[in-house]
Amino acid sequence: MVTLDDVRAAAARIASAVVRTPLLPCPWVGNERSAADRGLWLKPENLQPIGAFKMRGAHNAVARLDEDARARGVVAYSSGNHAQAVAHAAAAAGITAHIVMPASTPQVKIDNTRSHGAEVVLVGDDEREAVAYEIVAERGAVLVPPFDHPDVIAGQGTAGLEIVEDLPDVDVVLVPVSGGGLASGIATAVTALRPDAKVIGVEPELASDARESFRAGELVDWPVADRFRTIADGLRSQPSELTFAHLRNRLHDIVTVTEDEIRSAMAALAQKGRLVAEPSGAVSTAAYLFRGDELPAGRTVAVVSGGNVDPALLADVLTARTDEEDRADD
Amino acid sequence: MVTLDDVRAAAARIASAVVRTPLLPCPWVGNERSAADRGLWLKPENLQPIGAFKMRGAHNAVARLDEDARARGVVAYSSGNHAQAVAHAAAAAGITAHIVMPASTPQVKIDNTRSHGAEVVLVGDDEREAVAYEIVAERGAVLVPPFDHPDVIAGQGTAGLEIVEDLPDVDVVLVPVSGGGLASGIATAVTALRPDAKVIGVEPELASDARESFRAGELVDWPVADRFRTIADGLRSQPSELTFAHLRNRLHDIVTVTEDEIRSAMAALAQKGRLVAEPSGAVSTAAYLFRGDELPAGRTVAVVSGGNVDPALLADVLTARTDEEDRADD
Repeated sequence: MVTLDDVRAAAARIASAVVRTPLLPCPWVGNERSAADRGLWLKPENLQPIGAFKMRGAHNAVARLDEDARARGVVAYSSGNHAQAVAHAAAAAGITAHIVMPASTPQVKIDNTRSHGAEVVLVGDDEREAVAYEIVAERGAVLVPPFDHPDVIAGQGTAGLEIVEDLPDVDVVLVPVSGGGLASGIATAVTALRPDAKVIGVEPELASDARESFRAGELVDWPVADRFRTIADGLRSQPSELTFAHLRNRLHDIVTVTEDEIRSAMAALAQKGRLVAEPSGAVSTAAYLFRGDELPAGRTVAVVSGGNVDPALLADVLTARTDEEDRADD
Repeated sequence: MVTLDDVRAAAARIASAVVRTPLLPCPWVGNERSAADRGLWLKPENLQPIGAFKMRGAHNAVARLDEDARARGVVAYSSGNHAQAVAHAAAAAGITAHIVMPASTPQVKIDNTRSHGAEVVLVGDDEREAVAYEIVAERGAVLVPPFDHPDVIAGQGTAGLEIVEDLPDVDVVLVPVSGGGLASGIATAVTALRPDAKVIGVEPELASDARESFRAGELVDWPVADRFRTIADGLRSQPSELTFAHLRNRLHDIVTVTEDEIRSAMAALAQKGRLVAEPSGAVSTAAYLFRGDELPAGRTVAVVSGGNVDPALLADVLTARTDEEDRADD
């Protein structure tokens, strides 16, 4: 299991690479919750240079490599934020990165990954893992997994250190859960520093395998087709044995939100928080706004994990909200 | 003239009220500028609790009031971000605030100002100033002007202190100019701490009265109707004698951007910077992206001054950009 000391060591390693994100108070939620509550703060990880918290784990994993491993380079398979994070970390370390992506990945994400100097290998949708392991075998390159590694978990946990540093009397931290690296790391740091604080995972109802596993006390497998129904494209993975061991021991609970709640939270974050959040990044705010009855009261932080969203989708949630408000004004 | 010491004193006064915004590196501009340049950082003042830098000046001005003045309360006239800033500062200090707004102000801005506990006084469009002075006369309340006051300028300047603290070798700082309070304060702090750095004002072409004044060496008056043509509704004021004295002495230059450039910068900030900027908040980024030939090379900071934008307008610039990209892909 990852420890507070691991997270602290990661923080020292990645300090010059990641943005020290502030906590943003949200006066606008004042009237939307009961008097028992004492406020919401946002932790805007969407403001990292690649637009997501994945920077933290990737930079820590790359910084931990010895000289031999660096000479052989790194490999990752991802169509999402992890691809850019590993490319960014490899470029900063001056080492080679091969990123294996499905040929169906949107061009903008391929271009962004290449712009960091990574070698992008396009493959069929179901060949990603196999091709990545071929590169590992051929070149001796080191695979950087998106969540299933102690160095990655420790790196993501640095966001938790910063939360307690900025709000020492935090009561509740809401964190998106997919593979569980971010939630494992943040729960490790926050519960070690402030044992009374409760770290709560948030999932889309349509991909709530981790909640089911958490309730069952063992990993429950959901079919890919089920998990891929949610709009939150960053929350379609499942925890590994390693991350689940952390979630099970260190999370207080896992709650779920609906697709409509995710869209509403994206609109609220843009209009009232002035932050662009991708659907996965908005689930924690959605839980605060719409699932208050399932949450403990107290000073609450919602981690906005990423902001890489299709502009047409963002425009859509913004105008949907406007229509709603127009009706309310009639 | 406001001094570095005034700005430092303001920083100590407002530290607990304002968000210590980070500088955000922008790897995405790497390919869009010449090799002579060495990067762009954003200073996201849109992330202040009321969505704009105006927090800084208003909190400093209110904190400077003596007990007698506090008992009588404060007054401001504004339909924009200054209204919310003064309301927020008065609430934090536990004093009464009267905010005089045109009856034509969008309901959401009236509601936001009231939500901080301020007394909103709705008047005809051309009665704002007169009604504000009536309240001053009747109640002995203190008027907090939006820019024409040393305490307001010193408060806005605290953003400049933070820029140099975070990027000690900054070369260029781009700041929106309207009444000139923000540019005066930032230029005061930055040029005092780093005499080689150049602070450059940015205006919409359609409201470039300050640029004309800067070139002429004296205040040039533009008709209101002309200044109100720009989409950048926060940049329609003119400098006062006090702010112009600061701009003239401490700015290196003032450059202008077009309405299309402002809209493109809003889209880039949302898609690549994950920040919601209002048109006025996007002009400095527009100058970096589109007016590079008019700017000195070097490590550049663009101040994103605010993010209070109509969601329909934001949706519009996002989808306009998408259409453009679609055409480019054909």
